[in-house]
Amino acid sequence: MKKKKETIKALIELIRPLNCLMVSIGVIIGSFTGIGVDFSFASLIFLAVLVAVVVNMGGNSLNDYFDREIDIIAHPKRPLPSKRLTPKFVVIFTVSCFIAGIFFSTFINPFCFAVALVSVIVLILYEKYLKNKGLIGNMAVAYLTGSIFLFGGAAVGRIMAPVILAVLAFFATLAREIIKDVEDIAGDRKERQTLPMKIGEKNSVIIADFCLAGAIFLSFLPLVKNILGKGYLIVIIADVVFIYSMFIAFKNPRSAQKAIKIGMILALISFLLANI
Amino acid sequence: MKKKKETIKALIELIRPLNCLMVSIGVIIGSFTGIGVDFSFASLIFLAVLVAVVVNMGGNSLNDYFDREIDIIAHPKRPLPSKRLTPKFVVIFTVSCFIAGIFFSTFINPFCFAVALVSVIVLILYEKYLKNKGLIGNMAVAYLTGSIFLFGGAAVGRIMAPVILAVLAFFATLAREIIKDVEDIAGDRKERQTLPMKIGEKNSVIIADFCLAGAIFLSFLPLVKNILGKGYLIVIIADVVFIYSMFIAFKNPRSAQKAIKIGMILALISFLLANI
Repeated sequence: MKKKKETIKALIELIRPLNCLMVSIGVIIGSFTGIGVDFSFASLIFLAVLVAVVVNMGGNSLNDYFDREIDIIAHPKRPLPSKRLTPKFVVIFTVSCFIAGIFFSTFINPFCFAVALVSVIVLILYEKYLKNKGLIGNMAVAYLTGSIFLFGGAAVGRIMAPVILAVLAFFATLAREIIKDVEDIAGDRKERQTLPMKIGEKNSVIIADFCLAGAIFLSFLPLVKNILGKGYLIVIIADVVFIYSMFIAFKNPRSAQKAIKIGMILALISFLLANI
Repeated sequence: MKKKKETIKALIELIRPLNCLMVSIGVIIGSFTGIGVDFSFASLIFLAVLVAVVVNMGGNSLNDYFDREIDIIAHPKRPLPSKRLTPKFVVIFTVSCFIAGIFFSTFINPFCFAVALVSVIVLILYEKYLKNKGLIGNMAVAYLTGSIFLFGGAAVGRIMAPVILAVLAFFATLAREIIKDVEDIAGDRKERQTLPMKIGEKNSVIIADFCLAGAIFLSFLPLVKNILGKGYLIVIIADVVFIYSMFIAFKNPRSAQKAIKIGMILALISFLLANI
């Protein structure tokens, strides 16, 4: 009986509740970006959150599975290195999550099914091949972030604004991932082959800055097309933060990547307020 | 000429632009909590942001002044230990910021003047006496966080909802600071005299959990009084996160304090959406 309780505890650690929560919030923001803060879509949004969380649980579990050797040194207390869960159990759990997530997504609509399926494929590719592969790995992470908002919008069937938010999130996340690799270049030298190692720190920052410029450009689309309300003007503060990040990225990558995170949160808030 | 440019750069580092940005956002959220997303109060909100940022610049500058000895080892690149600014210059700059901030606040209204004045006093007391003094130091940090939202609400003259937000932020920040001290107990042993060192880790977590319970209780007030719109329901997710933090705080203080930060952001979003 005690063992069962320990297994459940280990399983909760494996799925990373905080991470799942962030994904839930992303899906909710994605759907509210489509329809405004509207609880009449509650059941569809709930289903979308369920699918996203289950897929994300699978992704986190898969991550622990692939990192199980490294984690013996790096994170010995995690469920696998501490032997509270077996690798076999984690694989079965991961596959179950992925299948359940894709299955549930069919009850929403075909577009959600497609997004869920592609995300599962990207998650597997990322863990198996792309994690340490520089730009393409960064792009996978950025896609997965953007897809959360896209999924929320797709669930409620309005995707014009959510697509803009998703692509903006893609660019901002890509910039942040690249700058994080610049920040970590010394520590990564042994284990990863990152973009700044291949093309140099300066060139990497230039690419990251282009991504941020893309995010800023996208943020103006809803203003030009006049599809969003006045609350969306908060996005201008987000843009100021992105511009600030562009300027400090080379000298101070740590501050720049933190600033991009703040900019992203501001952009999310502006999209949330956009339907007022 | 080159020296002047270097001085300006050092000054920008001293005031911590990211920190100032967060304060600006806090003031804006505080005022929007009072009046909804309403740009007809733009000039008052702008003035409030200016005051808050100038006072915060002074606070950051004062912090670098008091830490100048420790930073020779801990942060040798900062403006003072790297000798790009002199202690005398930093003191003059700090005092100027505080005086300018308090002076500008008189143009908003007497309530804003009072909040600005008290915040300056707390900032000075904190740096001079309270920083390493356990609970009272944590309370000073929590007050300063809460006062940002209070200030924003006071600027637009509607303080019912902003006061609730400010006190909620006070409790959540206090809980987070205490749990951070539990997390850092090993590293702090030499330098600081924190609450968990005085009363033990378990008792500290119990106090933090009471603070979180206070934050949760406060979050229900607007629902009971029916003063906020349906978008405020997002606060329920924030409460779930606070409850989650309460349960994991003893076993995993690091995750708990991170979760409280997420809960705070969610609570802020719910207050922002509350006027829809």
